[in-house]
Amino acid sequence: MKTIELLNEINSPEDIKKLSIEQMNILSDEIRKGILNRVNKIGGHLGPDLGFVEATIALHYVFNSPVDKFVFDVSHQIYPHKIITGRKKGFISENIDELFSITGYSNPTESKHDNFVIGHTSTSVSLATGIAKARDLKNENYNVIAIIGDGSLSGGEAFEGLNNAATLNSNFIVIVNDNEMSIAENHGSLYKNLEELRTSKGTASNNFFKALGYDYTYLEEGNDISSLVETLKKVKDCKKPTVVHIHTLKGKGYKPAETNKEQYHWCMSGFMDNSEYETSETYASITKDFILDKKSKNEPVIAIAAATPGIFEFDSEFRNKLGKNYTDVAIAEEHAVAYTSALAKNGAKPILSLMSSFIQRTYDQLSQDLALNNSPAVILVYWGGISPMDATHTGVFDIPLISNIPNIVYLAPSNKEEYLAMLNYAYDQNEHPVAIRVPFYPLISTGQKDSTDYSVLNKSKTVIKGKDIAIIAVGHFMNIGYEIVEGLKEKGINPTLINPKFLTGIDEALLNDLINDHKLVITLEDGVLDGGYGEKISRFYSNKNIKVLNYGAQKEFTDRIPAEVLYENYHLTKDLILKDIEKNYD
Amino acid sequence: MKTIELLNEINSPEDIKKLSIEQMNILSDEIRKGILNRVNKIGGHLGPDLGFVEATIALHYVFNSPVDKFVFDVSHQIYPHKIITGRKKGFISENIDELFSITGYSNPTESKHDNFVIGHTSTSVSLATGIAKARDLKNENYNVIAIIGDGSLSGGEAFEGLNNAATLNSNFIVIVNDNEMSIAENHGSLYKNLEELRTSKGTASNNFFKALGYDYTYLEEGNDISSLVETLKKVKDCKKPTVVHIHTLKGKGYKPAETNKEQYHWCMSGFMDNSEYETSETYASITKDFILDKKSKNEPVIAIAAATPGIFEFDSEFRNKLGKNYTDVAIAEEHAVAYTSALAKNGAKPILSLMSSFIQRTYDQLSQDLALNNSPAVILVYWGGISPMDATHTGVFDIPLISNIPNIVYLAPSNKEEYLAMLNYAYDQNEHPVAIRVPFYPLISTGQKDSTDYSVLNKSKTVIKGKDIAIIAVGHFMNIGYEIVEGLKEKGINPTLINPKFLTGIDEALLNDLINDHKLVITLEDGVLDGGYGEKISRFYSNKNIKVLNYGAQKEFTDRIPAEVLYENYHLTKDLILKDIEKNYD
Repeated sequence: MKTIELLNEINSPEDIKKLSIEQMNILSDEIRKGILNRVNKIGGHLGPDLGFVEATIALHYVFNSPVDKFVFDVSHQIYPHKIITGRKKGFISENIDELFSITGYSNPTESKHDNFVIGHTSTSVSLATGIAKARDLKNENYNVIAIIGDGSLSGGEAFEGLNNAATLNSNFIVIVNDNEMSIAENHGSLYKNLEELRTSKGTASNNFFKALGYDYTYLEEGNDISSLVETLKKVKDCKKPTVVHIHTLKGKGYKPAETNKEQYHWCMSGFMDNSEYETSETYASITKDFILDKKSKNEPVIAIAAATPGIFEFDSEFRNKLGKNYTDVAIAEEHAVAYTSALAKNGAKPILSLMSSFIQRTYDQLSQDLALNNSPAVILVYWGGISPMDATHTGVFDIPLISNIPNIVYLAPSNKEEYLAMLNYAYDQNEHPVAIRVPFYPLISTGQKDSTDYSVLNKSKTVIKGKDIAIIAVGHFMNIGYEIVEGLKEKGINPTLINPKFLTGIDEALLNDLINDHKLVITLEDGVLDGGYGEKISRFYSNKNIKVLNYGAQKEFTDRIPAEVLYENYHLTKDLILKDIEKNYD
Repeated sequence: MKTIELLNEINSPEDIKKLSIEQMNILSDEIRKGILNRVNKIGGHLGPDLGFVEATIALHYVFNSPVDKFVFDVSHQIYPHKIITGRKKGFISENIDELFSITGYSNPTESKHDNFVIGHTSTSVSLATGIAKARDLKNENYNVIAIIGDGSLSGGEAFEGLNNAATLNSNFIVIVNDNEMSIAENHGSLYKNLEELRTSKGTASNNFFKALGYDYTYLEEGNDISSLVETLKKVKDCKKPTVVHIHTLKGKGYKPAETNKEQYHWCMSGFMDNSEYETSETYASITKDFILDKKSKNEPVIAIAAATPGIFEFDSEFRNKLGKNYTDVAIAEEHAVAYTSALAKNGAKPILSLMSSFIQRTYDQLSQDLALNNSPAVILVYWGGISPMDATHTGVFDIPLISNIPNIVYLAPSNKEEYLAMLNYAYDQNEHPVAIRVPFYPLISTGQKDSTDYSVLNKSKTVIKGKDIAIIAVGHFMNIGYEIVEGLKEKGINPTLINPKFLTGIDEALLNDLINDHKLVITLEDGVLDGGYGEKISRFYSNKNIKVLNYGAQKEFTDRIPAEVLYENYHLTKDLILKDIEKNYD
C-alpha cells in the first residue's frame, strides 16, 4: 500500500515506544489508511476502529502488552491494536488473501497480544476480572485493562462484571471508549448519565462509575495522543479499580463515517464507491410492511430490537414512522425477551427481532419469562444457519436452543408466502410464544397465498406424495429437498417431500403413515444436528422398521470457512446425499 | 390457626384499606404467624418474607391491585402479598394439603393479583417495564410497581431493565427492598453504594439510582407502616420513573432469623424444632474437601458461587478457610462463567458451582466466553434431574443446554468414586472446559477407586457384558439400569449394562460392537428427552438394524408434581420399562 511509511517500521508494541508524539500522529493517519483499505476491500467494522486509533497507540505506548493484558470488548475497536501487534498485513495489503488471513476479532491464535476469542458484546470487564483475580492468586504483578465501548455498557454481563471487578483490591483499569454511539444510537438512561459526564467534563455529581466504587478520570480529548498518554500514565500501576472515560469521535478521519455514524459502523466491501444497497424485496422488508400496516390500523403493535436495527433493515425512516411503537432496548437481549413477554401479557402486540447468534444470550428468559408464562409474543430469528462467518457469529445453534423449551412454537417457513402466513398467525393468536426462523436465503416467492391454519400445531405438509424414500426438509432447505427429488427421479424413484414447518414438535400421524410405503427417511436442517430437529425424527423411528439419515451441521465452531466447504463436509449436497442413499437403500 | 383474629377478616386488598395504622400493626404480627406456620410445616422462604410484611400491607393500602400492577422479583418476598390477596389458607392452615395448595412463588393461575410466574431472580424490573409500555401504548392509566430485593439488583437482567425503564416518560415505581442481604451476604461494589445511601439516609452524592436517571426516595423505617404509607402516597401516580429505597430487617419478628440471616433465608419444615441437618458425607462435602486439599497445597484453586453457597454446603467456615480463594460473584451467573473462563485462561484453577436451573442463565457465556476459548475450567452442575420442585426450579434441561455446545466435556458420574476421579481429571487437565453433573441422589460409594483415564474422551464403560439387549444408563440412573438387568435376568435374558460417563459425545466403537449380538438398546437419562443424550444414540443407530428406546422426561414444565408420578408418566420404572421391552423385542 502506498503512502505508508512510518507503519512499515512498526512490527510490535515495542516499536511504538520509540516514537515521538508527532510521529504517533503521523502513524495514526497511516493506521487509518490501513483500516480503510481493509474494510473497502473485504468489509468490516469501520467507524469504531477509526475512532480508537489514537487511544490504541497511547495504550501501547504507556502499557507493556503482552505482560500487561488488554481485553477488547466485542472487538469492534480492535483493528488498530491488530495493526500495531504484528498483523498489519491484514490491513495494508493489496492482496485479498492476506487481508482475509487476519480475522476481524480478538483472536489468541493470531497473537499473544490477544487474550480471548471475542465477538459478542459486554464481556470484556467480566473476562478481565478473571484475568486480574488469577494474577492476584498467583501473586503476579501487571496491569489488566478492559476496553469497553459506551454501547456495550448496557449489557447485563458488563454490569455484573463491573460490580465484581470493583471489589478487587488491586490493579484494574476500565477504558470506557465513549463515542456517543452504540451500533445505532444509544438507548437507555445510562447514556443520559454519560452525556452529563461529557458535558460537565466528568464533574457531574451523578456518576454511574463512582456510584459503583470506581476511581474515575474523564478525558474529553480522546483522540489526542498527548492527552491520552498523560492520562494513562496516571492510572498505570494503580492499586485499585479505576475507570478512564474517554470521549472519542466515531468514524474519525473519514468524513462520511463521522457524519453517518450508524451507516458506517460496519461496511460492506466497496463502500467507498458509494454503491447503493439493493432495494429488492427481502424478508426484512415485508416484515417492516407488516408492522407498519398494523400501526396504521392503530393496533398496539410494537417492534423491538436490541441495538442491531440495521440487520432487520429498521432504518431511521422506519423507526421514525413507528415512533412510540418501536423500542431499541440497547445491547440488552435478556431484557428484550422479558420486556417482550410482558408487553404481550399486558395486551400489546410485540414483535422482537434478534439474530440467531445473539438469541443465545436469552435461553433463561425464553424459558422462564416467556415460555413458562405462555406469553403470546412474536420472536423473529434472523441469520440462523450454516455460514462462512466468524465462529462468534455463526447461527447454527438456535434450533436446539429454542425448540427444546416447552410451550414455545418455533416455525420454519420456506418461502415468502409461508412466512407471511406464519407471521399473521403468530401476531393474531393469544395462546403461545411463537418464534419464526426467518430464512437466511434470498427471498423466494411462490405467488400462491398460504392459507394453512397454523393454530393446528406440529402439522407438517406433504409437498410431494411419493413412496420408498421420504425427504423432510426444514425451512429454506426445501431447496435441497427439491434437488434430491429430481436426482431420485432420474434413478426411477418417486420420493415423498415433506415441509415440516414446525420445529418444536413432530407430526406423528404423518410419520406413522410413512412407515407403510417408505423404507428410508431423510432429514435436512440448516443447523447443528446435536439436539436439533432431525434427532426428533430419529427418536420417533428408533423402534420402528424404517431407516433415517439426518443431515445438518456437525457440533463444532466453524471460523470463516466458506459455506460450500461446510456443505461438502456435512454431505449437504445433492450428489453426496444421493450417494449416501445408495448405501443405505436397497 | 389460633391467635389469628384480624386476619380472619382480610380476604382481599380492599379489606386492608379499611384498617387503621394500629390495626395494620396487629395484622403484621398475624401475617408473621402465618408465614412461620407455613414454613415450619412445609418449608419455604422465611427471612425475606418476614422482613417485607409491613411494606406489603402499606403497598396494598396505598395502591389498588389488580388495577395497579405489582411485579415481585424472584418471589422471595411474596408471602405477605399472597396472604392479603385471598390465599391465606396456604399459610395459616393446620392442614398440610391446604398449605401445599398455594405455591411459594408468584403465580397468575392462583390470583389476578399476580402478573407472572416468577422464580428466577432479577426479572421484576424488566417484566414491569413491558407492563408499563403496553399500558402507555394502549393509553391506559395506572401504577406499575416493580419490587426488587437488594440481592437481585446485581443480576444483569435487572440492570438491563433499569436502563430501559428509566426512559419511560410515565409512571413506573421501583421498590428496592434493602435488607442488607442477598441469599447469603451481598457481594459487589453496588452494595457499598447501598450502604453509603443507608448511612447517609439517602443523601450520599454517589447514588446508583440517580445516576441511572431515577427520582429517588430513601426510607430508613422500612418496617414502619405509617412511614411507608406516607412515602408511598408521595410516589403514587408519579409521572416519571422513581425508585423508593426502603431499609428493612430480614427475618424481622423471629429472633433466630434476625440473627442468622443466611441460615433462615430458606428453611426446611420443622426448623423451629431446631433439628440439626445431617452431617453425613455428600457430593458437596467431598467437593469441599477436595478444594480445601488443593488450597492447603498452595495451588491457585478458586471456588466460585453465584449467591447460592448454601446449595453447595459452602458454609461460612468453608468460605473463611478459603479466603481469597473463594468468590461469590453475587446473583450474576453470566459473569460467573466469563470470570471462571478467564481465571482458567490465566492459570488459576477455578471450580464454579451452579444449580441446573440457574445455569440456564449462561448459555451464551458457556458457548462464547468458555467453550469457544477452550478454557480448562471446572463447572459443577447441581440438582440436575426430574424433581417435584416448582416449575421455576426443576433441573431437567441442562443436558440439552450444555451437551450440544462444541468443545465442552460434560461428565455424568454415577457414584462417589467416579465423581472424584472425574473431578481430579477436570482439575488437572488443561485442554477442555469440563462440566460435571453432580448426582442429585444420595451419595453412593462402591469403595473401589475409579482409575479411568478420562482424557480419552467419549469412552463409555461396559459394566455388564451380556447380549440381546443393552441398557445405557446415564449417571445416577445406573440404579434403574441395574433394576432392569435384574428384571430381564428373571426372564432369562442376560443384558448388557453400559455407563456412558460422557454426555457430550458417543462411543462409536462400542455402539458398533453392540450391533453384532444385540437387537435392542435402551437409554435412560434423568433429563428432558428432546435434545438430550438418548437422541444421540437414536441418531447413531437410525440407519442400522437395531432398535432403540429412549427414556427420560417429556418436554414440559412440571410444577410441584411428585417425582414418583413423573417417573410413572415417563415410564421410568422397572415394571413399565420391562413391559415396553416385551412389546419391542422378539
